[in-house]
Order: sequence, then structure tokens, then C-alpha cells
Amino acid sequence: MLEPLQWDNGKVCFLDQTKLPGEEIYRETDDYRVIAEGIRTLQIRGAPLIGISAAYGICLGAREYITIPETSFALKMHEIDAILRATRPTAVNLFWALNIMKQVWQKGLKEGCPPREISLRLDEESDALTKREYNVNYNISRRGAALLDNGDTVLTHCNAGSLACGGWGTALGIIHWAALKEKKRIQVIADETRPLLQGSRLTAFELVHNDIPVKVICDNMAGYCMSQGMVSKVIVGADRVTVRGDVANKIGTYTVAVLASYHHIPFYVAVPLSSIDFRLEEGEDIPIEERAAQEVLHFNGKSIAAPGAGALNPAFDVTPRTMVTALITERGIIPPPFEDTLKHLK
Amino acid sequence: MLEPLQWDNGKVCFLDQTKLPGEEIYRETDDYRVIAEGIRTLQIRGAPLIGISAAYGICLGAREYITIPETSFALKMHEIDAILRATRPTAVNLFWALNIMKQVWQKGLKEGCPPREISLRLDEESDALTKREYNVNYNISRRGAALLDNGDTVLTHCNAGSLACGGWGTALGIIHWAALKEKKRIQVIADETRPLLQGSRLTAFELVHNDIPVKVICDNMAGYCMSQGMVSKVIVGADRVTVRGDVANKIGTYTVAVLASYHHIPFYVAVPLSSIDFRLEEGEDIPIEERAAQEVLHFNGKSIAAPGAGALNPAFDVTPRTMVTALITERGIIPPPFEDTLKHLK
Repeated sequence: MLEPLQWDNGKVCFLDQTKLPGEEIYRETDDYRVIAEGIRTLQIRGAPLIGISAAYGICLGAREYITIPETSFALKMHEIDAILRATRPTAVNLFWALNIMKQVWQKGLKEGCPPREISLRLDEESDALTKREYNVNYNISRRGAALLDNGDTVLTHCNAGSLACGGWGTALGIIHWAALKEKKRIQVIADETRPLLQGSRLTAFELVHNDIPVKVICDNMAGYCMSQGMVSKVIVGADRVTVRGDVANKIGTYTVAVLASYHHIPFYVAVPLSSIDFRLEEGEDIPIEERAAQEVLHFNGKSIAAPGAGALNPAFDVTPRTMVTALITERGIIPPPFEDTLKHLK
Repeated sequence: MLEPLQWDNGKVCFLDQTKLPGEEIYRETDDYRVIAEGIRTLQIRGAPLIGISAAYGICLGAREYITIPETSFALKMHEIDAILRATRPTAVNLFWALNIMKQVWQKGLKEGCPPREISLRLDEESDALTKREYNVNYNISRRGAALLDNGDTVLTHCNAGSLACGGWGTALGIIHWAALKEKKRIQVIADETRPLLQGSRLTAFELVHNDIPVKVICDNMAGYCMSQGMVSKVIVGADRVTVRGDVANKIGTYTVAVLASYHHIPFYVAVPLSSIDFRLEEGEDIPIEERAAQEVLHFNGKSIAAPGAGALNPAFDVTPRTMVTALITERGIIPPPFEDTLKHLK
């Protein structure tokens, strides 16, 4: 499996995912601002990986101010937390991870620990968090693979693989597990996922890397493929799921869900519990990030649209729970009605 | 209105639509092979324009062999017809126009006309055909505009404007007529239409040219826009419509139709009678062109997908008649059931 991010005693080394598949560039940094910028610009992406990298961002930030007095240290920690928190609004893992880290540094401060001690505790916590997340993906992949049959063609949207999560990944982890561990014959149709092409750039990259047959399609071909009986199942990841089961994921997921529902094709969402927002009930309450029009109107730095044309660029959409066949979590396959089944997992 | 193709006494001058919006390059030729290649490579595109340009292609071909004996001339005309006929399989206008021209040259041969006389008749016929098509688009635009209300936001897919048709265009002609002639406030959401981006490159170009507000979206955003109540109507063109009302149009049209149907948004198809195939009943019998995987996997000459990944690239799909609210033809707005209403128009 690909390693999108590693921590090595005070340094984070991450793969710049905006350069894939053309170039495999790893960036090494001890500056939390580089991590924040990396998340903002999608060099680091995928809800679980955003959570992990934000946790290590906190570690880097703490190390930077290890020698200053405790009161100034507290202020700095708030600042670092705020900067990382402001990078992207939709994936809940960011806030989930930053909240876990915040409990650690606030507890440390309350106990009168010196910054150096707090920093050590933060390192330990983020290592533990990462290990837990990897373990979660392992279990999602293992459990979800039971849903795939020999000969299935799975359509997926965006990238919810090792690159998005570390470890096995979620949606793509399930496909990998079924193909590699269980030796099922699985083919994949990968939506290219405009505007940033995570499907053709990243998902196809991971599948080719593991010798699983993949065909890339333009997003608008999904309906055609389904109507021709070419898709047996849909599996996608999630950036945030409400306690009632509404799913925020990469823009276009909703379009795929409507199509799957119309063609009676099972639509599965692979999601770690860390991506479930137990405070939110309705999908319409999930904040949707609107990104720069430039991403739609330009490609590789070149304009592709008539000057004077505007653009919309919502980065996510919300799929209503009624279109979700099941959620696949580390605790197993969760059937609807999610308002009953999810509560028990809190 | 933009002029995508002009005939000037033995020369065709056409706009290379693959270069838009970056460059406005007109190509002049007296060689029918350049026309055939232009159609094949989408320099010339849009069902009605393909018909018109094929007709002029026949004129150019005839002029080339004007001095040879009649029997050789007949063989050459068959060859020219076959080369133009083999350019693209889906749009019926190509065959419709070539059949009209074939009647003219075959009649001439039967009557023992010299090639020079046949060539003159072909010039006259293609001028008349072009004039009729422009008149058809004028009437589609004028009649269809009645369906649009002040304040509407219309979603369209691909390009069915002046560039695709000459004259007013069809789907985009309706929008233009409502906005420019009837002074209705109309906004447009243009699907970018991957892989060749006719939406962002061509449709946005025409709308900006005529000061009509347009926002480009990636194809996968259409569901989101509809779910947010941002789309009041959908209007698209067609490459071929069966006598029962099934609609072949640019890949992705079917996805838009499923979405419109789910969101109870009217879905209109603007179509000249020349695009209706009165010999075909069922949409599944329309041949669907499969184009090179390269178009999906490359962008501006640069690979965007992992080496080793495959791709699907159907150029069209078929929207079933049940999802079409009405057809808009030069003879008026045709409601379902199309198996009854279309027959009378033959």
C-alpha cells in the first residue's frame, strides 16, 4: 500500500498528491504552516489523512514553541489549532483530530506540565491516533470485502484509498481486500472526478499499482455505464456522515447516488466512525466548501473556458440517507434505518 | 451569431472548433478530404453543421473531378460519398444530407448530364439545404422561446448553438431568442461536457459573446445544482431521435435526464426534423460511437491518468422518451406520446 504521510521524530514527510500521477514528490517539513497549506491546497487530502496530518501539525507547532513560557505557549497552541482548523470546512476528521489533540494540550496545561512534556504527550497521542486510524481502515476493508462478489464491477468516485487515508483506505481498501486477500475477480470503473481528477489521477494510480483492472470514465458517463448493466455495485468514501445517515462526500457523489438509486444498484458508503458527526442530524446542516472558480475554468494553468464565463465549484455534496444501501464501518456493515443503527455506535 | 462555416464559390471556410475559445482559427479548403477529416476530429461538429458541411464536401468532391468522363465521375462520387459517410456514425444529419445530395448526383447521371452540370446542381442543392437548416433553427429558437420564463435558469449540456448548427442554433438558439429578442432575464448553467469540453469551450463562448450570464459547472455538479433549486429547466440538442422519441445526444445527456426526472425539472430536447430518424423505433438501435481512450486519459496533450489505466469513451448516450418533457422542432413544441405526435410530422 502507498504511504501518503510519515512522521519521523519531529518531521512530517508527505506525498504531494497534486503532482500525481506524473510525479511522486515527497515533501519534508517541520513547520505546521506547511501542513496547513498542504491541506488547504489538497497536497494532503482525504478525510482520514487530513485528520492524521492535522494531529502531526499540532505536534510540529508545539515543538516550535517548546522553549517559551507556559502562558505564551498556551496562546501559541490556540493559534496553531486555529490555523489548522481553518484549512477546510467539510471533512469532520479535521475537527475530530484537532479536538483530541486539544484535550491533550489543554490537560497538560491544566496540570502545569512544561511545554516539553506536553509536546511529548502530543507526539504519543498522534502516533496512537494514526495507529487507530490504520487499524480502522484495515477493519473497514476486511469487513466491507464481504459485500463484493467474484466478477463484480465496482464504480467508485473520487479517491478513498491509501492516499486518502493511509493504510488500506476505506472504499478502495474494500476493493483491494476483496481482490488481493480474497482473490475475487473485481474490476473497477473510476469516475475521473472533476475538477481535480482524484479518480483518474489517484484512484487509477492505486489500482494499477496493485494490478486491479480499472477503466476511467468521465463523470457524465456513469449513467450510461449503469444503463448498460456495466456496474454491479457503487462504493464511495465520506467526508462527514450525520447521525441520521446523510453523507457529505466529494462533489458528484450525489449524482452517482441518484443514478444508482434509479438503476437499483447498491450504493455503499465506507466510513470510519471518526467521520460520523454525532452532533449533526441533517445533511443540509453540513457546511459545504465552495472552492475557487479557477479550478473549473483552468486546467494545468491554461484557461479552458471563454473569458467572461463564471463557474460554480462546490467541493462536496450531500447524499440523503434514503439512497444509501449500507454504511461500512470498522464495527461492521450498518444497515438503515441509520437513525437507529448509528446511535448504538457512538 | 457566430458563423462556423461558409461557402464561397468552390471554397469552404470553417472555424476550427477544437481551438476555441483560445484561438479563433478559420480554415479554408477546396478539398473534401479536409472536410471529412474536420468532421472526424470535431473541428466541425454539431449534428446540423455536420450535415451542412458534408453537403458542401460533396460539392468540393464533384468539382475536383469535373473534367473526367462520366463513368469515372460516377465512381468517384460514390467514393467521396463513402468517405464522408464514414466520418461519424451517430448524428443522423450526416446521412440525411448525404442522401439528399446523392439523389441529386444520381439523378444527374441518370439524365446523362455532364459532370459540370451535376456540380452546379449540387452547389444549388447544398445552398438550399443550408438555407432551409438556418430557417429551421430560426423557427426552433422562436417557437422554443415560449417555454422560457423571465428569471429562468436553464441548464444545458454540450453545445447546440450557432457553432453546432449555423444560424441561431437549436437548444442555445432558444435561450438566445428568449434573452435577446424577448428580453427575458435568462441565466445559464453550462455543463462543461467532458471529455472535449464543448460546454466550457463553446457554449460559454457563445453566451458570453451575447452577454447572457453563464456559469460553467463540472458535469458531476448537475445533481447538486438541481437539488439546491438552482435549475428551472433543462434544454439540450440531439444527434438523432427515433420515431418513438428516444434521444441520442452527447454523452452525459442521459445522466442529466435521470437527474432532471428525479428532481421534477422539465427536460426539453430541441431538434430539427432532419435529426429525426423515421426508420428507427428504439433508441437502443442507434449506433453509439466509441472514441479513443486518449480523449479521456489525456488533456491538452498531457496524460492525466496513471499509465496502465484503461478508459471508456462512448461519445453519445440515449435518453429514453419517458424522460423527455417535449421535443422542440421547427414545426412547434411536440408533446408525448411521441409515437403518436412525431408520425404526423414525417
